[in-house]
Amino acid sequence: MGIRYGIIGSGAIGCFYGAKLIQAGNDVHFLFHSDFEHVQKNGLRVDSVDGDMFFPKVNAYGQARDMPVCDVVLVALKSTQNHVLPSLLDPVVGPHTAIVLLQNGLGGERLLAEQTRAEHILGGLCLVCCNKLGPGHITHLEYGKILLAEYDRNDQPAGITPTMHAIAAPLQKAGIPIELSPDLVLARWKKLMWNIPFNGTCALLDAPTDKIMGCPQSRQLAFDLMQEVQAGAASQGRDISDEYIDEMMTFTDAMVSYMPSMMLDARHNRAMEVESIYGEPVRTAMRNGVHLVRTQTLYRQLTLLNARIYQQPPFGS
Amino acid sequence: MGIRYGIIGSGAIGCFYGAKLIQAGNDVHFLFHSDFEHVQKNGLRVDSVDGDMFFPKVNAYGQARDMPVCDVVLVALKSTQNHVLPSLLDPVVGPHTAIVLLQNGLGGERLLAEQTRAEHILGGLCLVCCNKLGPGHITHLEYGKILLAEYDRNDQPAGITPTMHAIAAPLQKAGIPIELSPDLVLARWKKLMWNIPFNGTCALLDAPTDKIMGCPQSRQLAFDLMQEVQAGAASQGRDISDEYIDEMMTFTDAMVSYMPSMMLDARHNRAMEVESIYGEPVRTAMRNGVHLVRTQTLYRQLTLLNARIYQQPPFGS
Repeated sequence: MGIRYGIIGSGAIGCFYGAKLIQAGNDVHFLFHSDFEHVQKNGLRVDSVDGDMFFPKVNAYGQARDMPVCDVVLVALKSTQNHVLPSLLDPVVGPHTAIVLLQNGLGGERLLAEQTRAEHILGGLCLVCCNKLGPGHITHLEYGKILLAEYDRNDQPAGITPTMHAIAAPLQKAGIPIELSPDLVLARWKKLMWNIPFNGTCALLDAPTDKIMGCPQSRQLAFDLMQEVQAGAASQGRDISDEYIDEMMTFTDAMVSYMPSMMLDARHNRAMEVESIYGEPVRTAMRNGVHLVRTQTLYRQLTLLNARIYQQPPFGS
Repeated sequence: MGIRYGIIGSGAIGCFYGAKLIQAGNDVHFLFHSDFEHVQKNGLRVDSVDGDMFFPKVNAYGQARDMPVCDVVLVALKSTQNHVLPSLLDPVVGPHTAIVLLQNGLGGERLLAEQTRAEHILGGLCLVCCNKLGPGHITHLEYGKILLAEYDRNDQPAGITPTMHAIAAPLQKAGIPIELSPDLVLARWKKLMWNIPFNGTCALLDAPTDKIMGCPQSRQLAFDLMQEVQAGAASQGRDISDEYIDEMMTFTDAMVSYMPSMMLDARHNRAMEVESIYGEPVRTAMRNGVHLVRTQTLYRQLTLLNARIYQQPPFGS
């Protein structure tokens, strides 16, 4: 048996990559939340464009404290749950464990570095379309690549490290395309270049991407927000070219009418990842003397929208 | 019989002030839109905290071309209709007519000065709570003051002019409290100090004022937007003090949970006054070298929201 993997947060993405790893003969342990009993009884099903997978018996856990220490832990928990993440990771992280954080936004790796004893922290930026159809039942529609980069506590480029190679090799063997990036900070800002303009605007206006792009005023807002993300990256010494902004606009124009995750969260009264996608980037740039004023405006609007969705204080009081 | 008044746009505000003027013995001519036939047949009813009024017969018109030339025209049309305003005013405005524009936002007086032959253009900023209950039926709940200021084509303070006194006197005699302001530009920016932070934010988030004020992030956004309005006023050489910002915050804290007109418009799929309250202030400040970035962000979001509400291009295409 190969490497022992822990999957923390077994939603669509966690289950998809976990299933790929089981299929390749690895020892995989899943932490489930609401689906635990269903998966215990009925197993895990992934309908995939790469071929369907079904595992009648998987190592499923309802509580992190029942899990073994793992070699590699893939964290696919929503970033809105990151405040409980250190306690969830405590049982599965040993002194030689590597954690790969499969999330959007900024700030997650620093939290893990400060509050877990993992030896290596990596960011994994996923390009994958998969959804949960029902308990223990995932559909994988397209893509599947993970862009992997190692965290450096000084936010410097870590380069292509031996750890990255060691983690990438068995993932690739399991059929997961991996791209290695020497600079986690740059990779995260480049992903934000799309997430910041579209996730929040689509959620606030309940409008998919083609509506944003089709109205000259909101299209200009998307463009201006991309320029702010460019300025945010520059505040950490990372250069993103004007051409990359043009590429993102062209890419979005070419997309079908798309509803980003945050818009779907807002529609279905689920917590939105406002802090990781908006709050942390705004604060990071501000620490470096750059004010992302438009991004901050969205951040403040989305914070209230999130509070309304949660029906938590100040709305629940 | 006294002065001849024309009321263009006979919604709640137009009917309320028009009724007060009839009651005081003036010759009042109303342009109605959807309520024309109803008022022709059933008259005009205003339930007011100052005493109810009912007029079985009023000078009601369904078309502006049927109206006489008037001495004073009160324009209480929604600013979203300002593009048709010059043609509506053409029959009622003679060489000695004064127009009083009862609207929020910027830009209306300039349009009237450029596209009508009125001798005097005044702005009338209303502090009044009245609503339409049904066809020809208005309820007046509180307040009623009009802040009156004369338009100057160079955007300079016009001072307290004889025209203002001449217009104010019969309005006051009709029981309408009038305050005279020497500076229309300053008066309009001071009104925007409340409208810009709250109208759009409440509309976008479908949240009344107390929700905005109760969430630290959106509360800060309201404060920041007030500072931008202060900067916008300064771009036209008008000084609004920091204390005025504090007063507006305190005033809003003390209000009951209030839904601004733009929020109600958004809820009921009616056109929102985005250009006069957001577009013109942003453009005016920009012409003077000041970028109201947060206000512009709201402007761009609201433009798309308005397009969705209207279901007009780009959404209708």
